[in-house]
Amino acid sequence: MKITIKRDYLIQALNEVTRAISSRTAIPILTGIKLTINDEGAILTGSDSDISIEAFIPLEKDDEQLITVEKYGSIVLPSRYVTDIVKRLPNDEVSIEVTEGFQTLITSGTASFTLNGLDANDYPQLPEIGNAPTLKIPADMLKNLIRQTAFAVSTVEVRPVLTGVNWILKEGTLLSIATDSHRLALRKINVDLPEEAKFNIVIPGKSLTELNKILDDTTEKVEVVVNNNQILFKVTDVLFYSRLLEGNYPDTTRLIPTSNTTTVAIAAKSLLQAIDRASLLARDNRNNVIKLVSTDNKEIEISSNSPEVGNVSEDLIPVSFEGESILISFNGKYMIDALRVFENQDVKIEFSGSMHQFVIRPVDHEEGNDILQLITPVRTF
Amino acid sequence: MKITIKRDYLIQALNEVTRAISSRTAIPILTGIKLTINDEGAILTGSDSDISIEAFIPLEKDDEQLITVEKYGSIVLPSRYVTDIVKRLPNDEVSIEVTEGFQTLITSGTASFTLNGLDANDYPQLPEIGNAPTLKIPADMLKNLIRQTAFAVSTVEVRPVLTGVNWILKEGTLLSIATDSHRLALRKINVDLPEEAKFNIVIPGKSLTELNKILDDTTEKVEVVVNNNQILFKVTDVLFYSRLLEGNYPDTTRLIPTSNTTTVAIAAKSLLQAIDRASLLARDNRNNVIKLVSTDNKEIEISSNSPEVGNVSEDLIPVSFEGESILISFNGKYMIDALRVFENQDVKIEFSGSMHQFVIRPVDHEEGNDILQLITPVRTF
Repeated sequence: MKITIKRDYLIQALNEVTRAISSRTAIPILTGIKLTINDEGAILTGSDSDISIEAFIPLEKDDEQLITVEKYGSIVLPSRYVTDIVKRLPNDEVSIEVTEGFQTLITSGTASFTLNGLDANDYPQLPEIGNAPTLKIPADMLKNLIRQTAFAVSTVEVRPVLTGVNWILKEGTLLSIATDSHRLALRKINVDLPEEAKFNIVIPGKSLTELNKILDDTTEKVEVVVNNNQILFKVTDVLFYSRLLEGNYPDTTRLIPTSNTTTVAIAAKSLLQAIDRASLLARDNRNNVIKLVSTDNKEIEISSNSPEVGNVSEDLIPVSFEGESILISFNGKYMIDALRVFENQDVKIEFSGSMHQFVIRPVDHEEGNDILQLITPVRTF
Repeated sequence: MKITIKRDYLIQALNEVTRAISSRTAIPILTGIKLTINDEGAILTGSDSDISIEAFIPLEKDDEQLITVEKYGSIVLPSRYVTDIVKRLPNDEVSIEVTEGFQTLITSGTASFTLNGLDANDYPQLPEIGNAPTLKIPADMLKNLIRQTAFAVSTVEVRPVLTGVNWILKEGTLLSIATDSHRLALRKINVDLPEEAKFNIVIPGKSLTELNKILDDTTEKVEVVVNNNQILFKVTDVLFYSRLLEGNYPDTTRLIPTSNTTTVAIAAKSLLQAIDRASLLARDNRNNVIKLVSTDNKEIEISSNSPEVGNVSEDLIPVSFEGESILISFNGKYMIDALRVFENQDVKIEFSGSMHQFVIRPVDHEEGNDILQLITPVRTF
């Protein structure tokens, strides 16, 4: 392999594939980045065997020559070093040449590095996805779907399947659900696909969080392919592969209460800010307990108490209050995570008494485009 | 105490005094911030008993009322909470009222906090500085003096006096010296003071680093007062006290070589960048060893070698090269720290052979306004 390549494009591609690389991998070659040059351009690959990311740099783009190839080939370079080196090189262009014994010469201006590379033939093959049906989702909608659910996955491995997000495709809708068994986040979107297309998969929460960092907030379509226990996201010039989690995801529909005794409509943001303030004193306690009480004049009092530090309370005027009075305690962090999903919207909180799970939804929403957050209260009495 | 105060000014003052507070203090009351209201304004104090910072907010500024006082008084509030609380309050104004048993009510808009305060009478007194002679240094010059020397202090307590910066005031100049015994940084500035004024003190490096964060890059004069084993810096509305280190600082003048065998003039920045690149491979080795060799055509080759990762070399063309050829190895981090001091200047490096300390100075400098960096080489052969 012998090429000259534009440094900016190489840095961008290195940054993208590095997201997949773990320093704690058990497979030494996966600490490296694979670089392959063929007659279409450069392909960079990074993987921790759960997630694999492939970034592509074409030979030319918009009439600009990005890569000049003298010799095709492939090499694995140590990721810990190659990105930092390329970032600090003095010139706009970088020459890369593989010499004897996988030694790789990286030069730019007066600077000249020789890195010990590894044989690209020893690098694991990426999963074969085949010709499975392709779902197309605008990048910004996919970002929202991830942002509004992935935070609620379990972070403990007691029930490994709960560390993933359940995606159910059926009847022209894609349902995304995450739960750690104390709270649940659900988002449903309409998708353009034949009604008979369907799957029910569990994607590791970590994979979606990493994918989200690669996605831009545009309406450009991301292709999603599911097959052979793998999911592939095709973003502009980047392929993002993730293994799926095995095991049956619990049926969460029965968790969602169908009736309620109190309904409060309120601006998500003002409630979030009040709970954020109350959490300042609650944060050092187990469960970060915040208390919500309705007052006689149908206001909402948010309060918290830390015997050592002090206490805090704040009265909020809801948009509307219907039903029985309510007194309930919950984990402030869970409530903040849930309310953040709704940004500047008004939300409707449906309570069924102090001991029962409560549900937050937007006041206004289109049919079939649902957002729901469910939280289990904390028993304090 | 009962006041209403502009939130922005209170946040600024809380941020400044918080720099002095350590979470690992052995004196519980020093985890708090003392707030005193008198007929001039609010005084906030934070301290870890080595450093004490006092910030002042006047009652009025530029015809704007900053504080409305209903009742004078003093209280100590838990620093871990009070700053976060004030930052998150909803309104521009904050009311603070001390009630029974040092309970302190902090309200703003709908939010209402009660914090458990402590008796301000139990807060240690700040050191008495008395009427010692006052040195005045422009803030930007003081910032440079600190930036160019304080990084070189020792970080180990083997010789405690070396964790400080030696300030010597004599004959109308202020000399600032720091050394960890492997390298030395020196800066001398002219000051407006009677020639007979003098001191020889050691200021903890940590104190100067914290002071630097408070200083703005302006020509406004900072007053410096030294007395009773304490130093006081008076910056606009902030008093910064530091304890001085005891013990005799070594006489460092004899360490500085008076002759040399090789003199290289070079742009500090291009040398720094080359060493920064070479350090990428050297950083995992002990001492971060970088090699500098003069070539036959009087260029400078910077190189480094890591058997596992690879090697790097870069040729630089110096502005001038005089004297014998040179081959020397040094700690790359020390060299980067030293070169950073000179920013975009050309520097003159004076070598006395592979085994001897070398000295870096600016090519151009005014009389009496000296900068010097000294580094001990690493023996690699």
